[in-house]
Amino acid sequence: MRELKERVYEANMELYRRNLVVYTWGNVSEIDRERGIVAIKPSGVPYETLRPEDIVLLSLETGERIDSKLNPSSDAPTHLGLYRAFEGIGGITHTHSTHAVAWAQAGMPLRCFGTTHADYFHGEVPITRYVSAEEAARAYEAETATVILEAFKGRDPMHTPAVLVRGHGPFTWGENGQKSVFNAVVLEEVARMNALTIAINPNAKDLPEALENKHFERKHGPNAYYGQR
Amino acid sequence: MRELKERVYEANMELYRRNLVVYTWGNVSEIDRERGIVAIKPSGVPYETLRPEDIVLLSLETGERIDSKLNPSSDAPTHLGLYRAFEGIGGITHTHSTHAVAWAQAGMPLRCFGTTHADYFHGEVPITRYVSAEEAARAYEAETATVILEAFKGRDPMHTPAVLVRGHGPFTWGENGQKSVFNAVVLEEVARMNALTIAINPNAKDLPEALENKHFERKHGPNAYYGQR
Amino acid sequence: MRELKERVYEANMELYRRNLVVYTWGNVSEIDRERGIVAIKPSGVPYETLRPEDIVLLSLETGERIDSKLNPSSDAPTHLGLYRAFEGIGGITHTHSTHAVAWAQAGMPLRCFGTTHADYFHGEVPITRYVSAEEAARAYEAETATVILEAFKGRDPMHTPAVLVRGHGPFTWGENGQKSVFNAVVLEEVARMNALTIAINPNAKDLPEALENKHFERKHGPNAYYGQR
Amino acid sequence: MRELKERVYEANMELYRRNLVVYTWGNVSEIDRERGIVAIKPSGVPYETLRPEDIVLLSLETGERIDSKLNPSSDAPTHLGLYRAFEGIGGITHTHSTHAVAWAQAGMPLRCFGTTHADYFHGEVPITRYVSAEEAARAYEAETATVILEAFKGRDPMHTPAVLVRGHGPFTWGENGQKSVFNAVVLEEVARMNALTIAINPNAKDLPEALENKHFERKHGPNAYYGQR
Repeated sequence: MRELKERVYEANMELYRRNLVVYTWGNVSEIDRERGIVAIKPSGVPYETLRPEDIVLLSLETGERIDSKLNPSSDAPTHLGLYRAFEGIGGITHTHSTHAVAWAQAGMPLRCFGTTHADYFHGEVPITRYVSAEEAARAYEAETATVILEAFKGRDPMHTPAVLVRGHGPFTWGENGQKSVFNAVVLEEVARMNALTIAINPNAKDLPEALENKHFERKHGPNAYYGQR
Repeated sequence: MRELKERVYEANMELYRRNLVVYTWGNVSEIDRERGIVAIKPSGVPYETLRPEDIVLLSLETGERIDSKLNPSSDAPTHLGLYRAFEGIGGITHTHSTHAVAWAQAGMPLRCFGTTHADYFHGEVPITRYVSAEEAARAYEAETATVILEAFKGRDPMHTPAVLVRGHGPFTWGENGQKSVFNAVVLEEVARMNALTIAINPNAKDLPEALENKHFERKHGPNAYYGQR
Repeated sequence: MRELKERVYEANMELYRRNLVVYTWGNVSEIDRERGIVAIKPSGVPYETLRPEDIVLLSLETGERIDSKLNPSSDAPTHLGLYRAFEGIGGITHTHSTHAVAWAQAGMPLRCFGTTHADYFHGEVPITRYVSAEEAARAYEAETATVILEAFKGRDPMHTPAVLVRGHGPFTWGENGQKSVFNAVVLEEVARMNALTIAINPNAKDLPEALENKHFERKHGPNAYYGQR
Repeated sequence: MRELKERVYEANMELYRRNLVVYTWGNVSEIDRERGIVAIKPSGVPYETLRPEDIVLLSLETGERIDSKLNPSSDAPTHLGLYRAFEGIGGITHTHSTHAVAWAQAGMPLRCFGTTHADYFHGEVPITRYVSAEEAARAYEAETATVILEAFKGRDPMHTPAVLVRGHGPFTWGENGQKSVFNAVVLEEVARMNALTIAINPNAKDLPEALENKHFERKHGPNAYYGQR
């Protein structure tokens, strides 16, 4: 378990170094699927003083703390809900990064305007509906997972490893914690590029589908040829 | 009194480190309510050379300097006016941070578009009216407090610890000087998110009230569950 | 003359440290009025390798080099033209800082939307007309001074120590080189605030004249009370 | 060949230091025209761990690797296509820099709004058409060169050393790798200035042609007088 805590600590610090968090507005988790344990940042602990041993362990099944004194991130029930439903993911990142939040507040998905987007996200990055008043009263953070799952009905979460929660902000995921942080950085940059794109041309067009698929396949699947393989 | 000066010095330097000030455009104060003494940054002294002993002490009652040679920030009468009216506050920060100033110049309040706002400010962050020509001629900085107090009629300043002074810029407050700096950082980030939000979607909607209250209560009041408690 | 070169070197490096220049896009000069000598950055020399002895000395009267091997900034004739016409100024800064250039390219003056502007610039920061084709063919940089002087007809250059040259960028000035750099930093920040202001509210109003004058007088003239006096 | 690798390594690191790349989104190449060899960044290797010996050598004629184990940047066929057609160029840079990408996604060329642009790019920086579905299926990266060459029909690539590939991002070039990086930095700054310009004034006018030519000729051709000559 020490290794898992170390990895989650490192992924959280990477998020901090990439300037995606103000104060404590962000958290990264990773799952050990064999043992059914999720490791996540503690709630409200500043990145400046965070230590590997502060990382909180939770049971995937019950959500209860395992041998940890600190409270987990208040977003932990969202993380747990995603790990239960998306079986292929190994790490999750939540941030309040500026441009992704702006799109979430604007209530609009991230359309695929270009190849930067297509290299990492297949199709648009969806936006959820609002969590309803009843859901919020019942189990706000768990129901945040509900609205994310609704937005991914019929979609492969590994092909579009990001979502905007309406009026809130982004969640991203990946094979492990570090990959989910990577996707959070990419998402914020794409969100910034898209905001500029429609400011320059409100009638900007989506990338043609052939190019969208081409770019996605350059980096994903059996015919991928980007990088050193 | 040395401790009070140290604390106000540290809070001012934190404001500087958070990149919220250009040259000398900002100041932090803190009050010792038992002794009725307010400590504040001296006027026009660069942050690069500011020392703890430069912090100016003022009488809450008379506004006069206590054992201090330097002139207090020219905004001192605004600080004093707020301390007199808002009995629960212990620290005040004034900045010319870019995005908060832009909203103040645009003459519009910060609407609650999302959970980042709702976590820290209950309801919209109000904007004052202009200080009138007569008020400005009489006692400009003291009357700046007047327009702020008007904007908070019927509102709890501790639930929304920030205001935009029209055509000028933000004031924030909190339990002490450091907390008021924290709120100044949050305000600037929310102001930036909001500007992007309406640029993306001029018809962006306010966060539903149920979510607004939920987020505020996650961090405030008897049922708060954010952080380590 | 070594002291003058040192001062101009330091002012140029301050411009660089304030992040107002990309590559060599900027220059600062200062004048010794008694001797009629202007010291200015050499043309095209990177800030990373600039040395005090590289600063070029020019005759105010003839514009010719005095004991200097390097070519002066290509904008030197504009500097000389301003020193000849504005007798109260002691230093000049030219930059291509992003937001000030954007307003110069947009062809619009900087209106006084708020107190940050009013603290340093009295009234709007004017924009010149374009240098004409004939003027450009004759003496482009000298005629750049001509269009600036036209824009200041009937205005006190010390009360509004900045101008936007249409389609080009800003010039600022002050009592000496360092003050002109200070005004370049302020101008860029005000230009950024103004761009955000009209993006938020295209109908944003100018600061009422009473407040505009009040703020200007807080820092200028016999009744100034900002800072340590 | 070691010197060529060193130079290309240094040019790539300069691109990284200038903050034009997120992760591995960018690459610089340089050509040795005498030997017909192109040196380029390897694909997907992080700048943090890149070493001079990792630079990949390719035959200009065949595109095949020469004595190199790593895969070249996936954009290598675009670089090769440009070297074959533009005989005067010695280095090429490709980035996904934010503002240049935004214009490429908006589907609009960079108009010449001011002298910053005119100093480096003669006329507008063109935007290509999309690579077609058929072209993408056949040889995507090689056909990216095709659409660039189409956009430069009748234009001198050395007078406007930059292009926006529609829905993708910028390519810039120059006498060598370092100069192409320089032009990538200038392009990103001009793209940023232009986005701000039309946000401030949607009817902003192009720089008059006489000034455009004047500025270009200050830095290019027989009558150039900028810098130390």
